[in-house]
Amino acid sequence: MPKIVDHEARRQHIAEAVHRVIDAQGMDRVSLREVAAEARVSMGQVQHYFATKDEMLVTALRHLNTRITRRVAAVGPSTPRALLRVGTLELLPLDDERRFEARVGLAFLARAAVSPSLAALLREGLPHVLAFYAAQIRAAQTTGQIPATADPDREATILFAFAQGMVSPTLIGHYTTGEVVAAVDYHLSRLFVR
Amino acid sequence: MPKIVDHEARRQHIAEAVHRVIDAQGMDRVSLREVAAEARVSMGQVQHYFATKDEMLVTALRHLNTRITRRVAAVGPSTPRALLRVGTLELLPLDDERRFEARVGLAFLARAAVSPSLAALLREGLPHVLAFYAAQIRAAQTTGQIPATADPDREATILFAFAQGMVSPTLIGHYTTGEVVAAVDYHLSRLFVR
Repeated sequence: MPKIVDHEARRQHIAEAVHRVIDAQGMDRVSLREVAAEARVSMGQVQHYFATKDEMLVTALRHLNTRITRRVAAVGPSTPRALLRVGTLELLPLDDERRFEARVGLAFLARAAVSPSLAALLREGLPHVLAFYAAQIRAAQTTGQIPATADPDREATILFAFAQGMVSPTLIGHYTTGEVVAAVDYHLSRLFVR
Repeated sequence: MPKIVDHEARRQHIAEAVHRVIDAQGMDRVSLREVAAEARVSMGQVQHYFATKDEMLVTALRHLNTRITRRVAAVGPSTPRALLRVGTLELLPLDDERRFEARVGLAFLARAAVSPSLAALLREGLPHVLAFYAAQIRAAQTTGQIPATADPDREATILFAFAQGMVSPTLIGHYTTGEVVAAVDYHLSRLFVR
């Protein structure tokens, strides 16, 4: 009987080892060797899936985004306001899992500023996030919850940037969890007239 | 005649070499040795000012913030709206100087997420930036340009986070300079009723 290998699960397993190496040792210490040790697989296995460190980082960043997207999707059908709220709060370091993701995410943002392949991946993903926000805003406009005068794309830009910009001040302990949630709700209350 | 040494200028010269090493080689490559080479001074000189890499990074981050603060201060007396606008745009990567600062700044934010000394410095600086924003908002409230119902501290939190969150999407080329300025003006136009 042929051995059945779940390649996607293997890639995810390695991607999560990349996250842990980034968090514990920093982005520069990521190597096929370090990641293989962290994932408890052979160098050959890692090389089977990733020819270069860059390819491995791209997969690891994609997997980080997938984790967040899945949690938002798990909310299921809901109101535009609730979806915008959860879609914002899931990005923020409000528990151990999200603090871990936020630290790793910041390392990726810093690296993407000097790595064309990571920058390209961020550029590819960003329109989807912004379109998700803008779609909720448009839906709320059709029911009059958000005024028709609001610009859905600009509001999406501002909401997403606001969320991203809260990550570092929250991680370093400037804001409490309660203050972060209150700031998000304050902003949403301005957007939604009812 | 005793030799007159401008210690502050020396420290700044070294701090700027730290920025260039971070930008060209990454945060992990910063060492007293690399920085001495980049600054074209001796290891001994660098060690005279900084006992550890951590001390050097703290000074380099402080100098990065000083550069930005000085540009905002150079605007001189102005309206609250103009000060909020310039105080936001000076943080954003809209020309070569600010793109350089933004890349180095992102590297510091990522490192601060795992470095207590850098986190402490960010926590120390953040209230000053937020107080500057909040003061402009309060001033605009006294003249009725911003409604009294706005919460100056929350608005300061949101404006600063929005600016910080625009850094990465702009650096990777998702937004043009014009789009960044338009998003900032859109947000300020919402805040200011006149």
